[in-house]
Amino acid sequence: MTQVSPTRSWVDSANGHADFPLQNLPLGVFSPAGQSPRSGVAIGDRIFDLQAALDAGLFDGAAGEAILAMRDGQLNAFFELGRGARVALREQLLNLLREGSPRRDEIQAQGEKLLHLAENCQMHLPAKINDYTDFYVGIEHAQNVGKLFRPDNPLLPNYKYVPIGYHGRASTVRPSGTDVRRPKGQTLPAGQTEPTFGPCARLDYELELGIWIAKGNTLGEPIAIGDAAEHIAGFCLLNDWSARDIQAWEYQPLGPFLSKSFLTSVSPWVVTAEALEPFRRAQPARPEGDPQPLPYLLDKRDQAAGAFDIELEVLLLTEAMREQKLPAHRLTLSNTQYMYWTVAQMVAHHSVNGCQLQAGDLFGSGTLSGPQSGQFGSLLEITEGGKKPIELASGEVRKFLEDGDEIILRARCSREGVVSIGFGECRGKILSAR
Amino acid sequence: MTQVSPTRSWVDSANGHADFPLQNLPLGVFSPAGQSPRSGVAIGDRIFDLQAALDAGLFDGAAGEAILAMRDGQLNAFFELGRGARVALREQLLNLLREGSPRRDEIQAQGEKLLHLAENCQMHLPAKINDYTDFYVGIEHAQNVGKLFRPDNPLLPNYKYVPIGYHGRASTVRPSGTDVRRPKGQTLPAGQTEPTFGPCARLDYELELGIWIAKGNTLGEPIAIGDAAEHIAGFCLLNDWSARDIQAWEYQPLGPFLSKSFLTSVSPWVVTAEALEPFRRAQPARPEGDPQPLPYLLDKRDQAAGAFDIELEVLLLTEAMREQKLPAHRLTLSNTQYMYWTVAQMVAHHSVNGCQLQAGDLFGSGTLSGPQSGQFGSLLEITEGGKKPIELASGEVRKFLEDGDEIILRARCSREGVVSIGFGECRGKILSAR
Repeated sequence: MTQVSPTRSWVDSANGHADFPLQNLPLGVFSPAGQSPRSGVAIGDRIFDLQAALDAGLFDGAAGEAILAMRDGQLNAFFELGRGARVALREQLLNLLREGSPRRDEIQAQGEKLLHLAENCQMHLPAKINDYTDFYVGIEHAQNVGKLFRPDNPLLPNYKYVPIGYHGRASTVRPSGTDVRRPKGQTLPAGQTEPTFGPCARLDYELELGIWIAKGNTLGEPIAIGDAAEHIAGFCLLNDWSARDIQAWEYQPLGPFLSKSFLTSVSPWVVTAEALEPFRRAQPARPEGDPQPLPYLLDKRDQAAGAFDIELEVLLLTEAMREQKLPAHRLTLSNTQYMYWTVAQMVAHHSVNGCQLQAGDLFGSGTLSGPQSGQFGSLLEITEGGKKPIELASGEVRKFLEDGDEIILRARCSREGVVSIGFGECRGKILSAR
Repeated sequence: MTQVSPTRSWVDSANGHADFPLQNLPLGVFSPAGQSPRSGVAIGDRIFDLQAALDAGLFDGAAGEAILAMRDGQLNAFFELGRGARVALREQLLNLLREGSPRRDEIQAQGEKLLHLAENCQMHLPAKINDYTDFYVGIEHAQNVGKLFRPDNPLLPNYKYVPIGYHGRASTVRPSGTDVRRPKGQTLPAGQTEPTFGPCARLDYELELGIWIAKGNTLGEPIAIGDAAEHIAGFCLLNDWSARDIQAWEYQPLGPFLSKSFLTSVSPWVVTAEALEPFRRAQPARPEGDPQPLPYLLDKRDQAAGAFDIELEVLLLTEAMREQKLPAHRLTLSNTQYMYWTVAQMVAHHSVNGCQLQAGDLFGSGTLSGPQSGQFGSLLEITEGGKKPIELASGEVRKFLEDGDEIILRARCSREGVVSIGFGECRGKILSAR
C-alpha cells in the first residue's frame, strides 16, 4: 500500500495523539455507558461508532459490508473477510475523518452518538478467541530464562530451527483493566522434596506482542509463508502473567499450565497490519553460524520486510507510589526487533502440519526482552529469579509483584518522516489471593 | 441416584445392544440425510430426535427446557444447565422408551421422523469446544513413555503430586470418522544435528477417555473437589493422534504442539455421568510409599467412588486386511482403572488457580495403558519406539501407522447384575501426506 495518506484529522485530539492519530485507526469493541458492545475505531480521545456511522449512511460498498460483519459485537467475521475488507474500511475512514472531509459537518452534527469520549466507554475483547497460542520467539528472553531453568543448556538445539510455541488457555484472556487475582497452586519450597499449596509468591509479568488471526485455513491445508499476510489481521499488547514458582514445579514434561492460565491480558485495540506498514523492517541478520530457516519458513518478501520496529515499554505502579503520587517506574524498554522469527513464520509453522487456524485466534509472541539490562521483559530476568531486587522511588523493593501493584504495557512506532502511532495501554492490577 | 431403572425398551434393537441399551441414553448432535444438525439420543440402532419429540409434545418441565437449550444444534447451553437438567431429561426418556410406555404408539406413529436409523445419519461434535485440555493421568503410560524419552527419570518428581496436563488445540477436534491427514513437519534424523522436513514417519494413536465439562466457573473462583460432579457432563472416547518424530524434536521446553494439533478424534456420543453411575468404583489404593493427595485434591466421596471401571479397546484395520476381509487386529485392551487421578481431581486441579472452565470444554485423560503387554495404549509403547514391530494376520508388520490404516477405539462398561453399556466407536483412517 503506497497511498499518500492525509496527515491531520478534524478530530482535534487526534493530531499529535501519542497512540491514535489519523494514521492508526485501530479497531475494537466497546460499550458506551450502559449500552451494549459494538465495534469502533479509536481516533484521538474519541471512539468512532462504526455501527451508528453505518446506520447514518456514512459507509458504502466493501467498507459497509465490513461493518455489517461486526454486527454481533465481535470482530471475528470481519477478520475472516481478510485484507480487502480492512483496506476498504480504512480508506473510507481516512476520508471521513481527515481534515477537509466533506462529511465532517454531518458527523459532528450527531455529536457523541458517533464520536464517544473514550474515557466514558468500556472496552471489551475485540473477538471471540477460539484458540490462543503462545510462541517463544524472543531469543534474548529464551536465553535469559533458559539460564535460570537449565544452566547447562539455556538455548535448546531446536530453538534456531523451530518457532517454538505451545497452546495457551483461551477462556482466560481478558482486556486491559481486568484485575489479576493472585493464583494459588502447588510449589516446591527450596531444598524440599514435597510441594506445599498456597498463594503464588513469585508473580511476574511477560511483555509480549499479540497477533490477531484474520482468515482461517481448512483443516489439513497449510498456509504457505508467502500467503501468511492474508491471515494476519492486526496486533495488540499482551501480558502473559506468570506464576514462576508454580511454573517451576509443574512444567515438566508437558509445558506451562496453571502457572499461566489464571489470566492473560491484552490491549483492546487491534492495530491493523495496514497501520503498521510504515514500521516494517528487514529481518535482522542472523548471527554468524546460525542456520538458514527451512524452506517452508523462508520467503524473500518476509526476509526483506517481515519484521517490525515497535518500541515496547513496561511500567510498574505500586500502591505506595500511587499514594505518594510518584510517576510509574519503567521496568522495561524493549523492541520487537528481538523476535527471532517473524509473524509470517509463526503462521506458516503453526499450520504446516495442517492445523486449522480460525479468524479471531490469538498468538502471543513470547516475551520480548533485549540483550541489555533495562530491556528485560519480565521480573524473572530483571531480578535474576529474585536474587537482585529492584529499588523504587517509593523506598520499596520488588523481587516479584506484590498485591496492589499495577503493570502497564505500552508500545510506540516511530520513524523519521512518518507520524508515530501507539497501541494504547494494557494494564492489570494484582489482587490478593482468595 | 438409586432409582430402579426399567431394563428393556420397546425399541427392539436396544435390548442386548452392545453400546446403546435403554440404560445408556447418550446425547449427541446428528444430521439426518440432507438435514441440519440437531440433538438426539442413541437407542439401539436408532437416534431419537429430541427436537422433533419436543415439538410433538413428548417432553415437559425441566426436560423440555433442557431440549430447548439444545436448539442451536450444540449441547453447550444444555451442559451449562448442570446435573438437574440431565437427570430430568433422562427420567422422561426412560419413561418414553421403556417397555410398556404409554407414549409408545404415539412415537411409533411418527416413524423415522422421531426415530432415525443411525446408519443414515451423520454425527457431529456434540458441542462447540472452547478449550481442550489434555491430561496425563495414565501412570503406566507416563512410565512407559518416560523410559523412552528420559531413561534416567521416567516418572518426574511432580507426577504423584500434580495431575499433569497441558492445553491442547480445540480447533482440530473432530468426530469419529474424520480422516487423518498424515502431517508434515520438522524431525531430527537419528545421529544428525540438523532437522529435515517431510511427512511424519512415526504416526501413532493414543487411547484416552474424553470428559465433557458441564457448568463453568467464574474467573478467579476455583471449583472445590466436592463440587466437581456438578461440572462434569459426560464422557467419550478420544484418540490423541501423535506424530512421534515431530514430538521428539519440538517438545522441549514448552511441551507438545504440532505433533498433536493436526487432529484429535472423539466418539460423538456423550455418555452421561448418570449412565456411568453403576460403573463407578473406589480409587485403587496407591502403592505403598506414594504421597497422599494435597487437601484440595482429596475428597472422601471421590476416594470412595470417583474412579470408573470402563474397559477400553483399540483395533487396527489395514488396507490389506480390509481387502482380505480379515477381522480387525486388537492392539490394546485396557481400563480406566489405570488413571492415577480421578476426573474430579482433574477439575479441581485445573481450576485451583482460578482458571475459568466453560460448558463444552473437553478434557482428555492422557493415554490409558495398563502395565502388561497387550494393555499398552499407543504403538510407541507396544513396539518400544519402533524397535519391536508387530505382525498382523495379513502378513504385514507395523512399527507405526501407515497410510490406509484405520484405528478404532471402543469402550464397554460391565458389572455383575447390571446391563452393560458402551460408548460407540471412535474411528479414524490415515490419508497420505499432501
